[in-house]
Amino acid sequence: MSLENISANKVFAGWHKQYSHEAVSTQCSMRFAIYLPPQAADSKVPVLYWLSGLTCSDENFMQKAGAHRIAAELGIAIVAPDTSPRGEGVADDPNGQYDLGLGAGFYVNATQTPWAPHYQMYDYIVDELPKLIEANFPVTSQKAIAGHSMGGHGALMIALRNADKYSSASAFSPIVNPSQVPWGEKAFSHYLGKNRDDWARYDSCELMKSSKQPVPMLVDQGEADSFLEQQLTPQRLTQVAEEVGYPLTLRMQPGYDHSYYFIASFIESHLRFHHQHF
Amino acid sequence: MSLENISANKVFAGWHKQYSHEAVSTQCSMRFAIYLPPQAADSKVPVLYWLSGLTCSDENFMQKAGAHRIAAELGIAIVAPDTSPRGEGVADDPNGQYDLGLGAGFYVNATQTPWAPHYQMYDYIVDELPKLIEANFPVTSQKAIAGHSMGGHGALMIALRNADKYSSASAFSPIVNPSQVPWGEKAFSHYLGKNRDDWARYDSCELMKSSKQPVPMLVDQGEADSFLEQQLTPQRLTQVAEEVGYPLTLRMQPGYDHSYYFIASFIESHLRFHHQHF
Repeated sequence: MSLENISANKVFAGWHKQYSHEAVSTQCSMRFAIYLPPQAADSKVPVLYWLSGLTCSDENFMQKAGAHRIAAELGIAIVAPDTSPRGEGVADDPNGQYDLGLGAGFYVNATQTPWAPHYQMYDYIVDELPKLIEANFPVTSQKAIAGHSMGGHGALMIALRNADKYSSASAFSPIVNPSQVPWGEKAFSHYLGKNRDDWARYDSCELMKSSKQPVPMLVDQGEADSFLEQQLTPQRLTQVAEEVGYPLTLRMQPGYDHSYYFIASFIESHLRFHHQHF
Repeated sequence: MSLENISANKVFAGWHKQYSHEAVSTQCSMRFAIYLPPQAADSKVPVLYWLSGLTCSDENFMQKAGAHRIAAELGIAIVAPDTSPRGEGVADDPNGQYDLGLGAGFYVNATQTPWAPHYQMYDYIVDELPKLIEANFPVTSQKAIAGHSMGGHGALMIALRNADKYSSASAFSPIVNPSQVPWGEKAFSHYLGKNRDDWARYDSCELMKSSKQPVPMLVDQGEADSFLEQQLTPQRLTQVAEEVGYPLTLRMQPGYDHSYYFIASFIESHLRFHHQHF
């Protein structure tokens, strides 16, 4: 559980730092970034876990979302893990595409060859990483989770399966029904096998149908997002939410696309939403 | 003067767009980014020109500085040009280093071979680009100028030479005395030749000594900036400012480094500073 510090930058009177560590769950060296707001110098603060989308690392959100200002105001730490295992011996898409393998872990525990030994991102995010963070940084056990696109899928799915662990969840442009869209079908068939029954426990629409303990959820979706119709399909989740009475707010945002410019425009209200539920 | 639109992203209810055009001054295709705040849909807005540092393109500031939020609040357009000419036939450092050639135009008009035909960034920034912007976008002729590192040098130097054109100037971590530091000595000797007398008109410390019409100036400098002592030397500019009574405010910021995390932390006060002088 030893941490290696890679970088440190002062931001909005707090500190952005990158670390690597040898992860047990993914059996490889994992990198993450943490933002510690100025309040963390004096007392423990709650943590927002941010899960990024396809092709991202721990860096995209920290560099592009403009989240530090609000986190510093509200006293929230942010932890941004990588999106997959990496390194020598970690399998990648044999066709070199961006939506499978490196940068595309989809936050599941893979059961299939050649993915299974390292692609255990669900366990890493839900169990190993929070333990590591809580043991090494001035944070409380209060947690929220958020993400973008593939990471929006990860955030909602993980909150739905761990309602006792997260006080709120939010997403930008999430893949809400991965079992039924091309990105998810490709990833799940590789990581989880061809039996679609095994996919349901990683599918937010399926999970919400049987959820017992609700987690407040906020979703922002750009109407000009080129992936909206084929991959993201947020209306399928709102339909389930209406059926089961789940506390989900979906905001369709006219003119906004799938980029970090969209995230930057609305990240403040996500942080305030999580703050309100801590 | 025809513009080719490359991208468009809605950000904070305004629009970030990238364009390319065939530039007369630099004799090549130049790319720039512009942020048009929501107010520009109804009326003309003033413009802040942002000059980036070594290795940057038009993208770094727009993606990492978190400036759109304040620009949208205040109704300011931001234009971020590239940091050098680029393309086939444009000379680069024969040793492939980052501080000369592509990405390192230093905002001067080169007089030396092989730089002279394309490396005319001073004319491009001061004359050609503002004409293009004012002819094609809903902006007024009110202009401010700001930048980072090499771009901080560019912003202060250009404001000192064009006090009639810019209502205010600001910089993060600027190279204030390029004639006397390694980055500037390398670039100026290549672009302007060995005669140091020709360097003074691109050196903010030298220009400030003989300035007639002051432009309000704000400079932020991180105390943990690894380039502070050898390349940036802001105290040389404050010394001149004190000697000649120039309206310069230098703020030393403890703990901050040379990165965009530093810029993001203080960009709001720079935009408010420029807004106050429009």
